[in-house]
Amino acid sequence: MRAIWLENQHPSYRSDLQQPVPAPGEALVRVRLAGVCSTDLELLRGYYPFTGIPGHEFVGQVVAAPGTPAWLGQRVVGEINIACGACSPCLIGNPTHCAQRRVLGIRDWHGAFAEYLVLPLQNLHLVPESVPDQAAVFTEPLAAALEILQQVAIQPSHRCLVVGAGRLGQLIAQVLATAGCDLKVVARHPNQRDMLQQRRIAWISEQQVGVGTMDIVVDATGTPLGFNLARQAVRPRGTIVLKSTYQGELSVNFSSIVVDEITLLGSRCGPFPPAIQLLSGAQVDPTLLIQAEYSLEDGVRALEYAAQPGVLKVLINPQ
Amino acid sequence: MRAIWLENQHPSYRSDLQQPVPAPGEALVRVRLAGVCSTDLELLRGYYPFTGIPGHEFVGQVVAAPGTPAWLGQRVVGEINIACGACSPCLIGNPTHCAQRRVLGIRDWHGAFAEYLVLPLQNLHLVPESVPDQAAVFTEPLAAALEILQQVAIQPSHRCLVVGAGRLGQLIAQVLATAGCDLKVVARHPNQRDMLQQRRIAWISEQQVGVGTMDIVVDATGTPLGFNLARQAVRPRGTIVLKSTYQGELSVNFSSIVVDEITLLGSRCGPFPPAIQLLSGAQVDPTLLIQAEYSLEDGVRALEYAAQPGVLKVLINPQ
Repeated sequence: MRAIWLENQHPSYRSDLQQPVPAPGEALVRVRLAGVCSTDLELLRGYYPFTGIPGHEFVGQVVAAPGTPAWLGQRVVGEINIACGACSPCLIGNPTHCAQRRVLGIRDWHGAFAEYLVLPLQNLHLVPESVPDQAAVFTEPLAAALEILQQVAIQPSHRCLVVGAGRLGQLIAQVLATAGCDLKVVARHPNQRDMLQQRRIAWISEQQVGVGTMDIVVDATGTPLGFNLARQAVRPRGTIVLKSTYQGELSVNFSSIVVDEITLLGSRCGPFPPAIQLLSGAQVDPTLLIQAEYSLEDGVRALEYAAQPGVLKVLINPQ
Repeated sequence: MRAIWLENQHPSYRSDLQQPVPAPGEALVRVRLAGVCSTDLELLRGYYPFTGIPGHEFVGQVVAAPGTPAWLGQRVVGEINIACGACSPCLIGNPTHCAQRRVLGIRDWHGAFAEYLVLPLQNLHLVPESVPDQAAVFTEPLAAALEILQQVAIQPSHRCLVVGAGRLGQLIAQVLATAGCDLKVVARHPNQRDMLQQRRIAWISEQQVGVGTMDIVVDATGTPLGFNLARQAVRPRGTIVLKSTYQGELSVNFSSIVVDEITLLGSRCGPFPPAIQLLSGAQVDPTLLIQAEYSLEDGVRALEYAAQPGVLKVLINPQ
């Protein structure tokens, strides 16, 4: 099987890999399209010592599902956490926080930059016909953006700021816009600003960020600079949503967090059904973000291109 | 007037100070009893460059209230934030977050380690006859502890941990106990443990803190060690309440906060009416915490004693 292989933070193209074999309760999925995410790039920088096939954003087709033929031929997207079902977080309904979880293309489970992948059937969701592959491949990051709406009750009266207009920041902006709030996005690059403008979402520069005026701020940068901008912008008793992978430790003035009674909210994977719903109703349009599509053979170049500043979504087509 | 005076982080006893004069809408309060708080000790260490009379926990008697004689003679406690009433936080009902606030004994307003203090009438609350001075003097820190119940809906099924059993930790423990939750307190010193036992609250040692088992953890230590214990104890999707003054910056692994979707909640001043209610109904008993009462002349020694490890509440009696 052909795939991108990651080892010692070094990605390479290989054509000598074994095609995975699904167990009962699992499906073999032929990957139709995969997306490059910042977490993939963090893996290359050593965020987590993963050896194997990276990639966790995909849309594919079920080509084998031992014992459950109803899945055969279905076009699917897949949740990325493979949960044990028996630990305390699993038992209280938080499988994405399973203590023994494996994670597609991130931890102990081969991912989507490959011709084929395997996932438990319970992780799969059908893709409606109205949603093309180029939109469906965004289901996972869109779900991650929707997690914010699960965690914070955003109202039309709320002044919201998204810091960062990259891959995830754009999706977060489109999702927050569906809540009808007073929304601004800190965008640095011209193409990021264009994209926001196409969705009629207001952008500002870093210099235009005010002091203590925002009810809810999402940091989608994962950088100390981004967090500090978010901290500056949020009002007393406001909320900062931490929505990115941060490298290393961050130095934070906790006394000021206490004095201003700020809420810091870590936010990760989100629910797939509302994400598919949004795509199906075209309330969001993530396809604007697509800047390039590479073949699997050129997957290493795809990762390099995705790491350039200002580049939005890069897709890998394994077929 | 006699008072403790703080200048260049150095406290001294003085008897040459001017008695303050209340403006219309303010009251002159004769301080009957004042409490030493960790924030007072932080001021001595340079947390905020305050010059003046420190002290913000008190019970006193109104001896002058120009134009509003109904207050004369009343026994009162007082909220510590003096708000402008006109800024954005004031206008949305968050006067404790007033952008121009002065704070009794902490910022631009002389405090309670004195024979007399002045406060706006709107900051004052009557003390019911059933509440003795030795209990009423705890109203302010008890209100701060009650702020947690305003911010987090604590239920009987919640496993709660308080890290730190000092002055504020003890009050937080007593307040959380009123919510009927499954409560444990990390206590280091024998007298702290005795006090918890008297209230039938379970204590554990630092070594007994588990990993990822607690729904809600309150860090009442304000130290990196305390925060790290809280971080260790909280479950995925759990909440850490930051309830103390932290010195300097804290280095935090934000990616783990994101991955585990932890909520960090800064918590400061709280509501006086429910605090007075709890004291009046004797649902909490803060008087257990009292370890010494000093005269105003010995106020500097009171501050020194309060700074000893394991010492709980130290009172200053200015009369």
